[in-house]
Amino acid sequence: MTPATTSAAPGTRDRLVRTASRLMQHGGYESTPVKQLVKEAEATLGSLYHFFPGGKQELAVAAIAFGDQEFAALLARGLDSRTDPAEAVEAVAVLLAEALRDSTWLDGCPVTATALESVGRMPDLQAACAVAFANWRRLVEDKLLANGLSEDDARDLALTVISTLEGAEMAAQVSESQTPLLVAGRHLSRLISAYA
Amino acid sequence: MTPATTSAAPGTRDRLVRTASRLMQHGGYESTPVKQLVKEAEATLGSLYHFFPGGKQELAVAAIAFGDQEFAALLARGLDSRTDPAEAVEAVAVLLAEALRDSTWLDGCPVTATALESVGRMPDLQAACAVAFANWRRLVEDKLLANGLSEDDARDLALTVISTLEGAEMAAQVSESQTPLLVAGRHLSRLISAYA
Repeated sequence: MTPATTSAAPGTRDRLVRTASRLMQHGGYESTPVKQLVKEAEATLGSLYHFFPGGKQELAVAAIAFGDQEFAALLARGLDSRTDPAEAVEAVAVLLAEALRDSTWLDGCPVTATALESVGRMPDLQAACAVAFANWRRLVEDKLLANGLSEDDARDLALTVISTLEGAEMAAQVSESQTPLLVAGRHLSRLISAYA
Repeated sequence: MTPATTSAAPGTRDRLVRTASRLMQHGGYESTPVKQLVKEAEATLGSLYHFFPGGKQELAVAAIAFGDQEFAALLARGLDSRTDPAEAVEAVAVLLAEALRDSTWLDGCPVTATALESVGRMPDLQAACAVAFANWRRLVEDKLLANGLSEDDARDLALTVISTLEGAEMAAQVSESQTPLLVAGRHLSRLISAYA
């Protein structure tokens, strides 16, 4: 077996995707050098192009989809932890605040940094980020619909819940404090209660 | 006069700061090459190091302070346009949505992209971003205090208003739609009314 074939063994693709997701979560797409990515994934440049013929950008789209699923799992865990949708959204904010503190403020939203870089410059990445945000909103929307909110209210509130959590997560990272997320959780809970 | 002195004439420093602010607004710090920055500012590398001996990072701190002031001016314009604080915050969201559409979704928050990159990696940039967020919150907090809200409510609501506008601006950019900002403006208005 040639080294290229070896590095294309099962597991390598997963490691590339997970590593790309983590590095993009921390610094975005542009500041993630392919060399560092391949090294930290214990892969080779050959295996990257084997699995992702389109190179770094194609890998980045897969990494965004991976981050999308990871964040969705955390969202779902918080939402499922309470029956009441207002309490459930507040529980999500608490979960995010804990995860952020435990990662010394590094593990924020997996796609925000890349999303901002992508606007008007990298359509494939921008589209993948838009899909991720839409998936997260749908989870919140379904929770609100299941608790009797109207379709219009559920759609609009889900949009604001995800926007607010994203912004509060960023504020929490920059100030290295859980407060922005915990306060946002209380406010979102109050807002949802006003509609429920 | 040597060329270095010429390029250090009044105006060059301003052009460097404005150009760095715009490029960092669009793509963050890492993806803003010094070469492009100097070229678009119609400056020289010598003039960059003349005004900013610390190089790109020192210039970036000045660019964040510039973006801070620009965003604060827009915030103040929206907040001053209505007496009622709930209506005023909604007016800010509308202003941001219009500015974003007019820039074909490119001119979002001037510091968000850099803020995310800076966490745990570039303390000077992270601190400058934290100062910017604190300044913007203070503008909202002052508006709420002037309208009779308690100090605790004003501080907490100001935190959530800025987080929500930041997150909604990012969602609006990625989806190329004003809706996230307009919906967030309505929700923030309702939230503030519940406390006022």
